[in-house]
Amino acid sequence: MTTAPPSAVVVLVPDQRGIEAFDSLPGIEPILWDLSSPRPAGADRAQVLVSRGVAPEFAAQMHTELPNLRMVQLFSAGRDAWTGIVPEGVVISGADRAHGGPVAEWVVAQLLNHYRDLVGYRAKQSAQTWERHPTGTLAGKRVLVLGAGDIGLNVQQRTVPFGADVTLAARTAREGVVDLAQAREMLPEQDVVVLALPLTADTHHLVDASFLAAMRPGSVLVNAGRGPLVDTDALLAALEDQRLHAILDVTDPEPLPSGHPLWTAPGVVITPHSAAITDDTANRCWDAIVRNVSEFVTR
Amino acid sequence: MTTAPPSAVVVLVPDQRGIEAFDSLPGIEPILWDLSSPRPAGADRAQVLVSRGVAPEFAAQMHTELPNLRMVQLFSAGRDAWTGIVPEGVVISGADRAHGGPVAEWVVAQLLNHYRDLVGYRAKQSAQTWERHPTGTLAGKRVLVLGAGDIGLNVQQRTVPFGADVTLAARTAREGVVDLAQAREMLPEQDVVVLALPLTADTHHLVDASFLAAMRPGSVLVNAGRGPLVDTDALLAALEDQRLHAILDVTDPEPLPSGHPLWTAPGVVITPHSAAITDDTANRCWDAIVRNVSEFVTR
Repeated sequence: MTTAPPSAVVVLVPDQRGIEAFDSLPGIEPILWDLSSPRPAGADRAQVLVSRGVAPEFAAQMHTELPNLRMVQLFSAGRDAWTGIVPEGVVISGADRAHGGPVAEWVVAQLLNHYRDLVGYRAKQSAQTWERHPTGTLAGKRVLVLGAGDIGLNVQQRTVPFGADVTLAARTAREGVVDLAQAREMLPEQDVVVLALPLTADTHHLVDASFLAAMRPGSVLVNAGRGPLVDTDALLAALEDQRLHAILDVTDPEPLPSGHPLWTAPGVVITPHSAAITDDTANRCWDAIVRNVSEFVTR
Repeated sequence: MTTAPPSAVVVLVPDQRGIEAFDSLPGIEPILWDLSSPRPAGADRAQVLVSRGVAPEFAAQMHTELPNLRMVQLFSAGRDAWTGIVPEGVVISGADRAHGGPVAEWVVAQLLNHYRDLVGYRAKQSAQTWERHPTGTLAGKRVLVLGAGDIGLNVQQRTVPFGADVTLAARTAREGVVDLAQAREMLPEQDVVVLALPLTADTHHLVDASFLAAMRPGSVLVNAGRGPLVDTDALLAALEDQRLHAILDVTDPEPLPSGHPLWTAPGVVITPHSAAITDDTANRCWDAIVRNVSEFVTR
């Protein structure tokens, strides 16, 4: 069997920006479809779907609506929302390399804000009080990063120059990376634990009461991964005891409803899953999406 | 003339911690004197004075009180407070290498706090509102650091990994460092200008109305050096126009009195000369002081 020169690969995109991103690429035919309107002509030929989020009513019909689908390309780094929804054999591609930098920047921003007590000094400015108090530093702190992917590597790159002692951990140990069992044994000596793991059946509630009890008193838990990596009730108990600090960009439930006790727990800082949301997010996402889809199509 | 084996060099120290720091070092005899009490026996032989601050009433008598003085060793990085006060030929040594790390950490903490709008997100947490807004990033910003000493180099080391485009400037151009005239020409393209220069007659009011007018609208001035590097009236005018942001660890006057308009100017963050004040400051200072004095004595 000989292979004919491939005809253009149809890529479904959710907005005009996507049309522009793919229009000049040889071998790719972008078609606009945000999944909520009727299926446009030619969309049934699509091999790639670029999508902002899951549309459950569409997911159920994906097999018949898009019989030629081979890849779903997301705007997020995490793929958990689509796992188990796409037909078997369809690749789910995250926009990983788009988010590692800004998420790591958020992690370091929050750690420096914590250790250097910018909030306490801001209160002194409001009171017009010229009065020093010593603060902690990030220098010399032991930082354990669970997850050695795009976010974890970017956190390491930005914290080591401050004189932090950084350990990366992942499911499988390798050069420069310990495994999660070894990481667990290191908890009592760590000043900071950063969660940057994907959410899977294995990592769901990885941070439970016993994990939190093993953490050093006064240490800081940072969740830059997914809310359900942490057992919220167990975290609330540890915070109420004032044993730990927590800095959370993701929560369970999410969005965190007004009135939830996590908002006001002692020692907690919460941002609304915004660590990757910067002025340049759209550009970074489209760069990653075009790169990933192009690599997939020409493979 | 032959040289006899040197007898112990007397080093005056302001507290018991200083006695302990020098006691075990061969060839050094520490004597406790904080300058406010009567001169203890043997202090007239002192070649080195370790001092926390200028005592003006003592400074006038320094020639007669300490006729053998060769070096004044400070706890601060800046030496401006002692310049012109010590007798001619006496070396003034700062505790530079003690402060560059924590001051640079403060600079990056403040820049990340600014760009990532941690204050705005803190308000959303207080309101229990799960709502994202895009923020700026340190990534991609052009950062000009005036001063290529201990602080400047440490700022460079900690900002480059974020993807900032960092230029160091000093009075004399050298490999990797532009001079102040070149730096001045670069002002319109910079997102951040960090002041980390010593205060001298040449640098007094370096940042005046024309310097501020040359800065890019919306850019950030960070003063981690000395208050009088900046003309406060000119800065106040630029802030009132909302042309610039300012992050100041030092001010002129200093301490900044309650009620001074700088406290509440638009777009200003002020800390009370505390960038180097961390839990570990005393250890870092004494390490630097013992290192500097030992090098001087054995030279």
